[in-house]
Amino acid sequence: MREFVLAVDLGATKILLGIGPKDGTILSKKRLLTPSGDPAQVLDAIVNGASQLMQDCGVSDKEITGIAVATPGPLAYPEGIVRDSPNLNWKRVELKKELSQRWGRPVIVEKDTNMAVLGEYYYGHYAKSNHLLYITVSTGIGGGIVANGQLYRGNIGGAGEVGHMVIDPGGRKCGCGRQGCLEALASGSAISQQLDEIINQGQGLAILACTPPGQKPSARELGIAAREGDREASLLIAKIAEYLGIGVANLVNIFSPGAVIFGGGVILGLKDLLLKPVRDYVYKNVFALNREELVIDCTELGNDIVLYGCLAAVNKNYV
Amino acid sequence: MREFVLAVDLGATKILLGIGPKDGTILSKKRLLTPSGDPAQVLDAIVNGASQLMQDCGVSDKEITGIAVATPGPLAYPEGIVRDSPNLNWKRVELKKELSQRWGRPVIVEKDTNMAVLGEYYYGHYAKSNHLLYITVSTGIGGGIVANGQLYRGNIGGAGEVGHMVIDPGGRKCGCGRQGCLEALASGSAISQQLDEIINQGQGLAILACTPPGQKPSARELGIAAREGDREASLLIAKIAEYLGIGVANLVNIFSPGAVIFGGGVILGLKDLLLKPVRDYVYKNVFALNREELVIDCTELGNDIVLYGCLAAVNKNYV
Repeated sequence: MREFVLAVDLGATKILLGIGPKDGTILSKKRLLTPSGDPAQVLDAIVNGASQLMQDCGVSDKEITGIAVATPGPLAYPEGIVRDSPNLNWKRVELKKELSQRWGRPVIVEKDTNMAVLGEYYYGHYAKSNHLLYITVSTGIGGGIVANGQLYRGNIGGAGEVGHMVIDPGGRKCGCGRQGCLEALASGSAISQQLDEIINQGQGLAILACTPPGQKPSARELGIAAREGDREASLLIAKIAEYLGIGVANLVNIFSPGAVIFGGGVILGLKDLLLKPVRDYVYKNVFALNREELVIDCTELGNDIVLYGCLAAVNKNYV
Repeated sequence: MREFVLAVDLGATKILLGIGPKDGTILSKKRLLTPSGDPAQVLDAIVNGASQLMQDCGVSDKEITGIAVATPGPLAYPEGIVRDSPNLNWKRVELKKELSQRWGRPVIVEKDTNMAVLGEYYYGHYAKSNHLLYITVSTGIGGGIVANGQLYRGNIGGAGEVGHMVIDPGGRKCGCGRQGCLEALASGSAISQQLDEIINQGQGLAILACTPPGQKPSARELGIAAREGDREASLLIAKIAEYLGIGVANLVNIFSPGAVIFGGGVILGLKDLLLKPVRDYVYKNVFALNREELVIDCTELGNDIVLYGCLAAVNKNYV
């Protein structure tokens, strides 16, 4: 009998579904908008979307050997309960239990950044390191940790919140309510805010010129302007890179990882414009011992990294 | 036959030796000054001191089933090579190899903060948590990590350098050359520096009044003055506590530990004066999920925590 894994990457704005054989490849994908209604509608959309995808691929229920779902956090482990999630705007949803009931079988549920680090660890380019740090630089900033060859979730599932490391106590206000979190300084939304401020001051004309009419400039337009040689854009990228560098250097001195792997739209979009100065900062500022074998790179799994993690979670018998 | 473990806590100023039966208790201790000469003299002092201690206790070579040595870092693992150690002022010493040769048997060598977290994990009050963070607040600030029930050293032994987490990029200069490291803001030496500055400005008279003639005030005198109700002392402690709080809250959001356990002379000396505001800050500022089961306390193993870790390293078959 053929064997397939069903993978679900639940996000605040979209749901990405994937199906793949047990070798860790993705056969087919499907993308849905996340319903904005109550949690039950989101769960229904996941289950219906999955049925549709299976039908499209000609895969039957019996051929699915495992299902794994990635969700924005916080996610209480091992219960699989989403708790006070700002992204999903969910107070408390028993995601693991609800989905297991709907599908009538056990479902693996992990925080999306944890799935991503599993994706990289088992199917990524840097799979060889047993001490791996995955950092997503997207609308927000989050992390996933493999320590001693194992996914590290901490005591209750809340590990990896590297975006809420305060690195500038007097700095910009964060969505979490504190000030100077890495996420408040160097995430996609922090970039958008800073671009807004620049534009409102009547500056950043080259960045504005790259922005489609009726839109606000974002990390994407910042990158276009910087590549075209705009100084203001380059200066803002340098500032973002320094904050990211401080955060990553802190993490490297704490974890001594074999590799720091970045994912997420902002850094995968800006690529070397952002990666290179971050890498330079980190290599220059961490202890010699921690620098020696350290790899710092973007994932080659792109935006599918979380789906790959879901495949890994099933194939490597996570629960 | 009786079985004993030999434990060595090598420090920059003193060497603490301990001997104990295999149940994780300490039978007898000995304290030496660390020779200031070249590394060979230090190694000789360790070996001779150990022989003396064994003789004092009537323990023979044959009765020693294992030897473990804790050293200031950086320590390359698994080779056990001390590298560019600012504390010991050693460039490169093959500590594991050299001591194994001198004793004619394998010796376990770990960074002192790693030994300390092992001490707490196996013989401390908070042994029950599989996700444990040990933080020493002493002349410097360092850390030891137990993740998923295992000591976490990272890729090359350099993990746990929590004192060199930058949390205020424009802040005080650190011994490591950077600015605004936690150690530069909240360690014993940072406290001494800030007391110096206060005194040099003609302030801090109550703190000075607690200081023995001919000495400079330190964390100890700061504590005495604060307990006597001095406002300047209380304000400085509040400032130190806030920085420590920021650092520990960052670590709690990264690790989601079951317990954060403090050791080291400064915090064990100041006790609740420092522990309480740090604890309050952390509980108030970390994600709800990470706060729920979190214990924050000082170790009950006191200054022997590293020796207990050495006993654990042997008894639990670390290599």
